[in-house]
Amino acid sequence: MSIPIVRTVAELRTAVAAWRQDNHRVAVVPTMGALHEGHLSLVRAALGQADRVIVTLFVNPTQFNNSSDLAAYPRTEDEDAAKLASLGAHILYAPDADEMYPQGFATTVSVSGVSEGLCGAFRPGHFDGVATVVAKLFLQSGADLAFFGEKDFQQLHVVRRLARDLDIPIEIVGCPTVREPDGLAMSSRNVRLSASEREIAPMLAEILFDTSGRLTEGAPVDDALATAREAIVRAGYRKVEYLELRGDDDLKPLGATDRQGRLLAAAWLGETRLIDNVKVMPVRHGSRNRL
Amino acid sequence: MSIPIVRTVAELRTAVAAWRQDNHRVAVVPTMGALHEGHLSLVRAALGQADRVIVTLFVNPTQFNNSSDLAAYPRTEDEDAAKLASLGAHILYAPDADEMYPQGFATTVSVSGVSEGLCGAFRPGHFDGVATVVAKLFLQSGADLAFFGEKDFQQLHVVRRLARDLDIPIEIVGCPTVREPDGLAMSSRNVRLSASEREIAPMLAEILFDTSGRLTEGAPVDDALATAREAIVRAGYRKVEYLELRGDDDLKPLGATDRQGRLLAAAWLGETRLIDNVKVMPVRHGSRNRL
Repeated sequence: MSIPIVRTVAELRTAVAAWRQDNHRVAVVPTMGALHEGHLSLVRAALGQADRVIVTLFVNPTQFNNSSDLAAYPRTEDEDAAKLASLGAHILYAPDADEMYPQGFATTVSVSGVSEGLCGAFRPGHFDGVATVVAKLFLQSGADLAFFGEKDFQQLHVVRRLARDLDIPIEIVGCPTVREPDGLAMSSRNVRLSASEREIAPMLAEILFDTSGRLTEGAPVDDALATAREAIVRAGYRKVEYLELRGDDDLKPLGATDRQGRLLAAAWLGETRLIDNVKVMPVRHGSRNRL
Repeated sequence: MSIPIVRTVAELRTAVAAWRQDNHRVAVVPTMGALHEGHLSLVRAALGQADRVIVTLFVNPTQFNNSSDLAAYPRTEDEDAAKLASLGAHILYAPDADEMYPQGFATTVSVSGVSEGLCGAFRPGHFDGVATVVAKLFLQSGADLAFFGEKDFQQLHVVRRLARDLDIPIEIVGCPTVREPDGLAMSSRNVRLSASEREIAPMLAEILFDTSGRLTEGAPVDDALATAREAIVRAGYRKVEYLELRGDDDLKPLGATDRQGRLLAAAWLGETRLIDNVKVMPVRHGSRNRL
């Protein structure tokens, strides 16, 4: 079993046009490759909602604000293709940088608001790079549906916003974060962790879930976040880049757990930056502050 | 004879989807209304190359860097609709600002390079506003072809660039500037000229054509531009905002008339800012500098 690998926009459009003739519903799953179970869950979700699924593999240089991070990003196309073939995805679209950004390329898509703060504050230019490449992938594929993981929760908001604002006729589907058995959110960057870091890593998720529970039970937001920051560092993380409570639907900062929120964190474990986020249910009516 | 006026993206898409069922080729002609013969020439060109023609009318606030210019911009929808009906255009798409920029709108399309200098230097934010609204109109209409006048030559370059860079599957067709019998380029802003200004106005075009001829005959660029600037002011224009020779195909500054160029100017006549541009053929092999 194999999967056709397409390198150019022209070939991709030819394939999609043929599917359109047959009235197929088309989904796209944008990835940077190094596919893990999280990506595969997106592909399975796409296969469940569309007749044809394009998985894109492009390690987009414009969304890396750090050249060593770009250089170190894992590239495993053959393995990726094999995984996709076994799932039954229909096309692996893997253009090179010249196909995406030919000579003279000069356009940037920027999303304000939801791209500000969190990762946006620490990775200047990152979300411009994401928004621009995602707009291109949507328009190159002409897909009806696109699948993104909640692991990159701020990215999901940026993508929803740009698709709506630019009137791209595509439905954005967000899918739950997939975790290792010990709770660590799956990430292509996890392979960079040493054995000892890998043991510490799941503490980030554990602390986020724990803090989410305390917030829902009525813990004051500032106290709960301060406690969580300390716990992350005590667990062995080198530094907490951010840890914030935001609105689940609009990413606006939340000072109280009075509506559904999202607790988002980025933290450094040695030389590896990990991000994660968990849902926070509002304080239930009648619950007391038990702290 | 009348033309259907559509106010929402949803209605527009329904109409276009029905055309697609019949395999019609669809063109869009973006305008800010106050239609004159220049716009109508675009509509005629569109009718010649497509089966169905959408004319858009939206006075886009985000491309005005000056609120009094926005307030003074002529609005003549009834007359516009009548003109379009008599030509046989198929839809007048005239959304309001809330339809184009609903609550929470946060996305900007920016084009570097071709948007810099010329009007870009004097109208900060103008081309971001143009690029964003044009991307939206292309994606709302899903048109195969879009028609723009060469009168706004830099805008034409910005639009070509953004469509190519974002992989919007639309062909951009540039059409020649339409002029009054005395040479004045048609513009919706011409109605603001007083009778005496209107008499002076055509001198801008006359000087540009004359200077273009001198450049092709081998006049040194700096000398020719300096002479032209003086002539525009002597003719009665209050101020020359810019007057430059650029490459016709890439808008890069040209220091010599060694390839096809474009002479572009913006000048103030009283309180009205007028722009114009003319093609400049390269110095012919064997021609001498006759100055």
